[in-house]
Amino acid sequence: MPIRYPNGKPYVPSAQNQLASQKQKTYSNRGMTLEEDINQSNTYYLSTGKAVIHKKPTPVQIVNVDYPKRSAAVIKEAYFKQASTTDYNGVYKGRYVDFEAKETKNKTAFPLSNFHEHQIEHMKQVHEHNGICFVLLRFSITDEVFLMDAAILFSHWETMKNGGRKSIKKEEIEKQGTLIPYTYQPRIDYIKIIDKMYFSYETTGFNS
Amino acid sequence: MPIRYPNGKPYVPSAQNQLASQKQKTYSNRGMTLEEDINQSNTYYLSTGKAVIHKKPTPVQIVNVDYPKRSAAVIKEAYFKQASTTDYNGVYKGRYVDFEAKETKNKTAFPLSNFHEHQIEHMKQVHEHNGICFVLLRFSITDEVFLMDAAILFSHWETMKNGGRKSIKKEEIEKQGTLIPYTYQPRIDYIKIIDKMYFSYETTGFNS
Repeated sequence: MPIRYPNGKPYVPSAQNQLASQKQKTYSNRGMTLEEDINQSNTYYLSTGKAVIHKKPTPVQIVNVDYPKRSAAVIKEAYFKQASTTDYNGVYKGRYVDFEAKETKNKTAFPLSNFHEHQIEHMKQVHEHNGICFVLLRFSITDEVFLMDAAILFSHWETMKNGGRKSIKKEEIEKQGTLIPYTYQPRIDYIKIIDKMYFSYETTGFNS
Repeated sequence: MPIRYPNGKPYVPSAQNQLASQKQKTYSNRGMTLEEDINQSNTYYLSTGKAVIHKKPTPVQIVNVDYPKRSAAVIKEAYFKQASTTDYNGVYKGRYVDFEAKETKNKTAFPLSNFHEHQIEHMKQVHEHNGICFVLLRFSITDEVFLMDAAILFSHWETMKNGGRKSIKKEEIEKQGTLIPYTYQPRIDYIKIIDKMYFSYETTGFNS
């Protein structure tokens, strides 16, 4: 039976809708940002009891607040502050998990200008304290998301600081990172990857 | 040699200053808020490589932003959002650490109204995922800070929800929690306590 509009006319998918529904089947990105995909994944992990990972609020320097009678306080003047840490952190199997997510429109390399010195510093500290620390890198044109351990990012960062490349070649990311295929639920199943990378001794003997 | 002002007059400590300097000797709270004490402690832990714990930014719902030419974006309208998690989290020895800090002017009991249902929910999730989760409770009149494992808070919370006490008696906190004496650096050495509580098998055999 064909789908009909309330006025009785049959629903004919437009070329755009057909394209969208084709895209849906491969679970590729439906116009969602990387942030939305990660938030959806984190909500899924939380509701299924898999992990507790949250995005940190955007840091804001509040300058002026109005307290009107009988209604909520209104922030009248505030400025965006640069974050001193990464955007996401939480707990998985008791371990501390910390990551940053970035996307680029570049097709062949990931520019290191997406990261700030203090974010790298923070990730180094987490790494030293034996936390699980990585980056999610999305190539938005091809809609591919890679997970790369922070230690690998550090080495590229050092290279840059010593006058070397200011980006990571995509083929290096393909080799040194792990592609995370889009799935329906969660959208970006990064926990599956870190389970293999950091908990293999407990599970499938991935490294043995 | 007496200390002198730039105009040559000798500096005579006022009663207030003398009191302050006496208080300093016992490392008690010098008019600092609990939040300031914790931030100082976290900075100390970070700089000494002991732990990486940060306060999360205040969550704000941004409604209207102005982008003036040649200067920083100005947030013109925003509202405080209720936090969906606790205020502090981070990593210590690879483990996830998560806590909330609250203070009361009450002398005999800690009102549970200091916590929100969703904060308790969050702490329960962290607890289930084997994270280290606790609260720091300060009695501001006597200037005492206690660390109490979140699981104990949950039981008091349940009691309240079943129609019982809406606060935790101070003597219960003294028994079920651990007093953290003020020290110079860090101001509130909560890592020392969690080291004993959660890592005792690695260190001194505290529980054995």
